[in-house]
Amino acid sequence: MTRNVAILIFDEVEVLDFCGPFEVFGVTGRNQTPKPFNVYTVAEKSPITARNGLSVNPTYTLENCLQPDILLVPGGAGTRREMNNPTIINWIKEQFPKVELMLSVCTGALMLGKAGLLDGLAATTHFGAEAELREAAPNTTIRMSERYVDNGKVITSAGISAGIDMALYTVGHLLGAEVAADTAHHMQYDYWKGQ
Amino acid sequence: MTRNVAILIFDEVEVLDFCGPFEVFGVTGRNQTPKPFNVYTVAEKSPITARNGLSVNPTYTLENCLQPDILLVPGGAGTRREMNNPTIINWIKEQFPKVELMLSVCTGALMLGKAGLLDGLAATTHFGAEAELREAAPNTTIRMSERYVDNGKVITSAGISAGIDMALYTVGHLLGAEVAADTAHHMQYDYWKGQ
Repeated sequence: MTRNVAILIFDEVEVLDFCGPFEVFGVTGRNQTPKPFNVYTVAEKSPITARNGLSVNPTYTLENCLQPDILLVPGGAGTRREMNNPTIINWIKEQFPKVELMLSVCTGALMLGKAGLLDGLAATTHFGAEAELREAAPNTTIRMSERYVDNGKVITSAGISAGIDMALYTVGHLLGAEVAADTAHHMQYDYWKGQ
Repeated sequence: MTRNVAILIFDEVEVLDFCGPFEVFGVTGRNQTPKPFNVYTVAEKSPITARNGLSVNPTYTLENCLQPDILLVPGGAGTRREMNNPTIINWIKEQFPKVELMLSVCTGALMLGKAGLLDGLAATTHFGAEAELREAAPNTTIRMSERYVDNGKVITSAGISAGIDMALYTVGHLLGAEVAADTAHHMQYDYWKGQ
């Protein structure tokens, strides 16, 4: 079984927010056929310009996107615009009942909050965005001291590099700790101590 | 003073190999004007397709590339093709006398080796590419146990995620440990303990 992992990207998305998890899901089970994850990007337009000018051509648009099993919403300065973009927020809302897992990295949590997907849950975000998350998700328990917060279907992570750990945690959760450890080892991510 | 940081990309470049350092150099001194680093990508063609299908439009081609002060060569499966591509290898060779620092991540070291830039130096690479590096760089001391190896002008790193540490080390080397620590803090890269 291959799970589809869609990563939503947009102008001023933070580069490591989306590329860290892209790497983790992309190299997991890299010698298996079929691979456990099919990772791809999706955006409202093409190309998008990530932070500091990295230009990316998304694999899919919102309209033609291969149905994800896992949807990951990264952060970055652009989330302050996209959290008020009804096209994006409604698309995230529409995906929610259809996905197995909804993940966010960094200020991607603001978008999940605006979509109402954090109501009654616990969440984290970049340390600099605590007040914004409290405003975007007023019915959410904010846990700034945790690197990622797992509510079952919704998992949020702290800022930027924490997305790597959250993705490894998710791999371990779905496929077992040994698989996550193998991914971390291949990435020479010596800091991963399992879960 | 702003240093230009060019990151060479190519088909089947490993995503985190180039995006990790891109993030580090890109966010360093993010509130300063001018910023200490201007980071961009350069490739032989456009677009390039990184590992697992990430499509990137490089900022520059080899012909029109803004002269870098720092050139970073990432790794990935594509290095086994590009290390035998005289256009790329000659471009790297031509850059060497003009740059302040030449960096590699992962199997990017194979390309520096083929360009003759590791002769008489010490280097490291991805743990799975030790034999290939010994062949590509026969006059080089291979140090597989180190996360990055600094020879002064040439710094190589171990696999994939080690590029983040090598980039933070380089920031600290150029701008001081406090600046590198601030970058790691902003990225919530709690694993960085300084140097």
